[in-house]
Amino acid sequence: MNRNKLLQTLFKTCRQRTSTICKPLEVEDYIPQPTIDVSPPKWHLGHTTWFFEAFVLQPYFKDYRLYDNDFAYLFNSYYNNAGKRVLRPNRGLMSRPPVREVMAYRDYVTEAMLQFLSQVDDPMIMDIVELGINHEEQHQELLVYDIKYILGNQPTFPIYGEGFELKPETGKGFVELKEGLYNIGADGHSFCYDNERGQHQVYLGKYAISNTLVSNGAYFEFIADGGYKDFNLWLSEGWDFIQREKIKAPLYWHQLEGEWWQYTLQGFQKIDPNQPVQHISFYEALAFAEWKGMRLPTEFEWEAAASQLNWGQLWEWTYSAYQPYPDFEKAPGALGEYNGKFMINQNVLRGASVATAPKHSRITYRNFFHAACRWHFAGIRLAKSL
Amino acid sequence: MNRNKLLQTLFKTCRQRTSTICKPLEVEDYIPQPTIDVSPPKWHLGHTTWFFEAFVLQPYFKDYRLYDNDFAYLFNSYYNNAGKRVLRPNRGLMSRPPVREVMAYRDYVTEAMLQFLSQVDDPMIMDIVELGINHEEQHQELLVYDIKYILGNQPTFPIYGEGFELKPETGKGFVELKEGLYNIGADGHSFCYDNERGQHQVYLGKYAISNTLVSNGAYFEFIADGGYKDFNLWLSEGWDFIQREKIKAPLYWHQLEGEWWQYTLQGFQKIDPNQPVQHISFYEALAFAEWKGMRLPTEFEWEAAASQLNWGQLWEWTYSAYQPYPDFEKAPGALGEYNGKFMINQNVLRGASVATAPKHSRITYRNFFHAACRWHFAGIRLAKSL
Amino acid sequence: MNRNKLLQTLFKTCRQRTSTICKPLEVEDYIPQPTIDVSPPKWHLGHTTWFFEAFVLQPYFKDYRLYDNDFAYLFNSYYNNAGKRVLRPNRGLMSRPPVREVMAYRDYVTEAMLQFLSQVDDPMIMDIVELGINHEEQHQELLVYDIKYILGNQPTFPIYGEGFELKPETGKGFVELKEGLYNIGADGHSFCYDNERGQHQVYLGKYAISNTLVSNGAYFEFIADGGYKDFNLWLSEGWDFIQREKIKAPLYWHQLEGEWWQYTLQGFQKIDPNQPVQHISFYEALAFAEWKGMRLPTEFEWEAAASQLNWGQLWEWTYSAYQPYPDFEKAPGALGEYNGKFMINQNVLRGASVATAPKHSRITYRNFFHAACRWHFAGIRLAKSL
Amino acid sequence: MNRNKLLQTLFKTCRQRTSTICKPLEVEDYIPQPTIDVSPPKWHLGHTTWFFEAFVLQPYFKDYRLYDNDFAYLFNSYYNNAGKRVLRPNRGLMSRPPVREVMAYRDYVTEAMLQFLSQVDDPMIMDIVELGINHEEQHQELLVYDIKYILGNQPTFPIYGEGFELKPETGKGFVELKEGLYNIGADGHSFCYDNERGQHQVYLGKYAISNTLVSNGAYFEFIADGGYKDFNLWLSEGWDFIQREKIKAPLYWHQLEGEWWQYTLQGFQKIDPNQPVQHISFYEALAFAEWKGMRLPTEFEWEAAASQLNWGQLWEWTYSAYQPYPDFEKAPGALGEYNGKFMINQNVLRGASVATAPKHSRITYRNFFHAACRWHFAGIRLAKSL
Repeated sequence: MNRNKLLQTLFKTCRQRTSTICKPLEVEDYIPQPTIDVSPPKWHLGHTTWFFEAFVLQPYFKDYRLYDNDFAYLFNSYYNNAGKRVLRPNRGLMSRPPVREVMAYRDYVTEAMLQFLSQVDDPMIMDIVELGINHEEQHQELLVYDIKYILGNQPTFPIYGEGFELKPETGKGFVELKEGLYNIGADGHSFCYDNERGQHQVYLGKYAISNTLVSNGAYFEFIADGGYKDFNLWLSEGWDFIQREKIKAPLYWHQLEGEWWQYTLQGFQKIDPNQPVQHISFYEALAFAEWKGMRLPTEFEWEAAASQLNWGQLWEWTYSAYQPYPDFEKAPGALGEYNGKFMINQNVLRGASVATAPKHSRITYRNFFHAACRWHFAGIRLAKSL
Repeated sequence: MNRNKLLQTLFKTCRQRTSTICKPLEVEDYIPQPTIDVSPPKWHLGHTTWFFEAFVLQPYFKDYRLYDNDFAYLFNSYYNNAGKRVLRPNRGLMSRPPVREVMAYRDYVTEAMLQFLSQVDDPMIMDIVELGINHEEQHQELLVYDIKYILGNQPTFPIYGEGFELKPETGKGFVELKEGLYNIGADGHSFCYDNERGQHQVYLGKYAISNTLVSNGAYFEFIADGGYKDFNLWLSEGWDFIQREKIKAPLYWHQLEGEWWQYTLQGFQKIDPNQPVQHISFYEALAFAEWKGMRLPTEFEWEAAASQLNWGQLWEWTYSAYQPYPDFEKAPGALGEYNGKFMINQNVLRGASVATAPKHSRITYRNFFHAACRWHFAGIRLAKSL
Repeated sequence: MNRNKLLQTLFKTCRQRTSTICKPLEVEDYIPQPTIDVSPPKWHLGHTTWFFEAFVLQPYFKDYRLYDNDFAYLFNSYYNNAGKRVLRPNRGLMSRPPVREVMAYRDYVTEAMLQFLSQVDDPMIMDIVELGINHEEQHQELLVYDIKYILGNQPTFPIYGEGFELKPETGKGFVELKEGLYNIGADGHSFCYDNERGQHQVYLGKYAISNTLVSNGAYFEFIADGGYKDFNLWLSEGWDFIQREKIKAPLYWHQLEGEWWQYTLQGFQKIDPNQPVQHISFYEALAFAEWKGMRLPTEFEWEAAASQLNWGQLWEWTYSAYQPYPDFEKAPGALGEYNGKFMINQNVLRGASVATAPKHSRITYRNFFHAACRWHFAGIRLAKSL
Repeated sequence: MNRNKLLQTLFKTCRQRTSTICKPLEVEDYIPQPTIDVSPPKWHLGHTTWFFEAFVLQPYFKDYRLYDNDFAYLFNSYYNNAGKRVLRPNRGLMSRPPVREVMAYRDYVTEAMLQFLSQVDDPMIMDIVELGINHEEQHQELLVYDIKYILGNQPTFPIYGEGFELKPETGKGFVELKEGLYNIGADGHSFCYDNERGQHQVYLGKYAISNTLVSNGAYFEFIADGGYKDFNLWLSEGWDFIQREKIKAPLYWHQLEGEWWQYTLQGFQKIDPNQPVQHISFYEALAFAEWKGMRLPTEFEWEAAASQLNWGQLWEWTYSAYQPYPDFEKAPGALGEYNGKFMINQNVLRGASVATAPKHSRITYRNFFHAACRWHFAGIRLAKSL
């Protein structure tokens, strides 16, 4: 299959998956923004569509007519180069355009893209389309997080439906790696983001890394042992964070008559001790590791070991700050704002989660969140120096 | 018509009017809470219904089955005596129950109330029903304010439709009143709120009060003369307020190429200089009066003069703090929280507006808002001592 | 004695009293601003001096040389008409000029004023001097409050020394007043502030007013009876205030092994149940009255009864908003900012306190504070309608 | 000289240097805390003294009598293991104990330490004394920053006096380094902090690093070229930071009639274009580098090149997050809180400044500040990959 045809298939699949994720929602669920990090589903739908319109159709599709001039303002996220936009904290105020019109906008742009893709042959443009597909896949994952947060904060704990369940981890024990030089980063032979590029060598000491994620059961013990009450386990900022926010357990956990329950997309459920723990901040992950007498891996240790690990259910916090690789270069223009400008005060997460789009994961992938974030699907993998 | 029958008619009319006000809305418009003072329309629908359920049906209608046990929690506003509730700033996060279910809740309670009203004869219960109707009428007015605020903050300025338009004021000149004792407050022969009761005498000096509200045209002059730039016209708090919020004109006003436009429920329109100015804070009203070399009336001056005035298009800021009348007594139980607990740091407004329910206004009525509020339908009437 | 000579005496006495109040302080105590309402003592010393320089010496004393051009900027409080100034929250950052230089500034201006007063005969200027003396006396009272707050927030509770002690109240029972018209406000025959002027009639219903302030002992009972836990006793804002600030007793109170202690200017002491309770907010005063089944007087009820009351130990919260009298007129220029611009969202207090300068009190005096203030010397007098 | 004698000399020199730094201060300057990061000089004096009392004298000096039981509470900084303490934002409220008493406390502890040091021979205790000396030296540097901030925020810009001046940089051009493995971290043969320990190999690509810091002159060009107005040069957080704080130049810079002036410890001066630029945040350093088409070095690149560089006037921002070295271990007990708990959301700075104590600097030293900090003495060194 030539690239052109392949892109059409990928594009259709991607657009369809977004619709599938939204299917169980009520119209009302598309609107709220319960906290600044969480965007309304409607906004994700509009924004991923605007991306194709602004970066593909408008510049390259001759005679393309914008669906609506206002939409660039409504659905631009953070691209300063692409003009003014609704400020992030105000996304939940936009009742208009109504959902059905955003759906119509999606159909209009999908249609135009398919028309355009049937004729395009410029590799540079195809690169942007591929980026747009990956961009929408990233937003699909955020959509799942945001839907869970919106529904999980309804006093009635509504059920979303099947999908995105975790299974008990099957791996066992620790994998040991030798000290030496390891190749880190993408070789550039297939799609990747700018932040993965510039393959380079990193020297690692001898270390061991667990083959499984930490389970809910192990986390029960951490809590029962006073993990949230012993400041010696915590970073100073982390300790302040859990005091200020009154955090005593992972997000979505509730203790009822001595037993732990959690909100899940399948409703309110008793917690399975065999499943991996999720919805913890970096601070909690690190405190748990400290309590265990171990540490979190660096992102380089993770990548060097990844082929021997059992991964993919949850993103994994690493003790690596999100910083540019030595030869990092950002793209020119608005797409240069994709990654580089966020490289401060965030931590890298490696792996993938049950909400990650199929084929969207790879061992060089660098995800990143602030240390206090808890609504994304992240867990804990332990490591130790040898 | 006996009271029982009358209440049935009033009740039906009232419930119907709420539906009529909401008719032009999209489902999405029922959800957002763009600022803490503005409640989502869905919340008003649920709350006014809950009021009848909690204070009439549940205590007095034998065998009544609650529509849903969770709704008391979702739709209680501020009645501490009536149990826990969703905190005010979180009303905009509730996508569930969906609008159609709140409508079903309304129908269920309306039906039950009509059944109940056909048989009730206890005057005390009928008093509560009457209060409930008046309560819903108050929320109808807030609904209109809140709908205007939600739509007026959409970047696309959507049209709501006909209704609630202002006309140019027709009165002329000033009415003069003699010094002396005036009766203030309700005599208790017909429905009124607890805050109006306890008719008492107030001594007023000689004064004059304008027969018309201040017009947009006069307000243009105030702005053009630097009214928003001269601290000598402002209360200290008012001056801080307009600096901090960068306020240079009434809410919903926009200056385009030297001309003033405003968002209205009929869309974005050029401002008519002959209509009364609205959407100004108490601070702005007072600064305008100061600029004119006059003052605002007290609530007593307003009431003493009301029968000679041309009023009803807009609520009118008075320079009277919202405080209890000498013999103020609050009702026992949860309904005692209706008014008294708000009697601090608010200003009384008198009159009525185009959004006030028919027959809901009277000259003893005491409305109240914080001095900085601007989203309600309020204007300026001038007075001066003689 | 002619007015000119009298003013010299009053001026000297006043300047001396400020020094006496500051005598027990360490140099370090002159600097901190522990909360925005509390000004550093150094600032009060400079500001009261600047007032005479800016409003008397500079405009009227020929050939007067400003002590330092920067001081107007440093020591102006809120007079927009008198130029730029250090913002209120930053007063505690000013370590310079050092205290000894502010003292030198005081001496320089005192000297110049005495020289000037020996020759002045213009009554208008003498009026400003009299205002300046009263202004400094007001700041003396604030100085005492602020010193107590600064010392009372030291972890070591240092002793200030003798002065400003309360005695048990000696009066008994309630005074009854007939309904009718009462004269309110100053007749203008002796010094008063602009906010007291414009004597006018107010009609009052029949009422009784206590001859004593509420005692600590009575307040113990209020606390023991759950007064701080029963929302029905509180204004809505007051209830939010005590929750947010975690208030469970008057300011400076500490419970140690079941007994109540308080910080006083004489050090940390066991609370005397016979002394009047002080350091309570308006919210607490009102909740106490509600608990007692009574109410607070209005400022008019207080003034009408004052000649029959035993008052002067503590300012007394009234349930009257601070608003202009019917014929209120503010002075032209900067002195017009003295009172009028604060007439919103504050409550009137009547009486005087042990920290009030001798001869500074009178029955028409209108003091005012925000309902949440607690660091000033205020107590509770009860009233009831008959 | 044996270690025991050496420590006595180092201790005396260190204590003396603290006094010398404070000599030009007025008593009043010891009190304010103008922003949360800046501690009052009095607090530094007490805290460095408390460190010796709490970690040396109290546990190890037989029969030592605490100077004052309250001082541990007043002068503990952040050691949770060492008990309760005054919260950081409240340090500026403490007028008591007065400065002279803190000086007496210093003398008392200095005396006791000298007595103790004359007899001690346990190497573990001598290690803690050495840490205490280094700790006080760190606070000496903070003292200089904080004094500059306190004086530089006086409206009168007072002169501190001689000391801590910058000179024009003398180096030229770039130093080139080969790719390969470099040893990073301290070998443990002489004093260092726990965060430097665990020497390990790091692989670096080929790079060049400037031999001089960026000058004021170069920074003038950056500003003149619109550096503060082009969002493409900035990290997203950095751009938000300069918008929110309205930052348009380094801290202490003022533009007067087209020329740049700055507050220095020698007073208000015209800026010398040949001196290195200082008082810039990490965000500004990075934006400058981006504008130059270069980047900041990592802390490893800095350390690998340090022996060939001309350094020591200003700390240098690196693009390395402050994270633990692979074999990082924290000390047991309260001293374990020294460094490790701050290893999140901070950036490493390397080098030293004119305010660093003599012999306190070394090429493995890891200083760290939040990206937004600007009051410390930091500058910019450029690097580029080859």
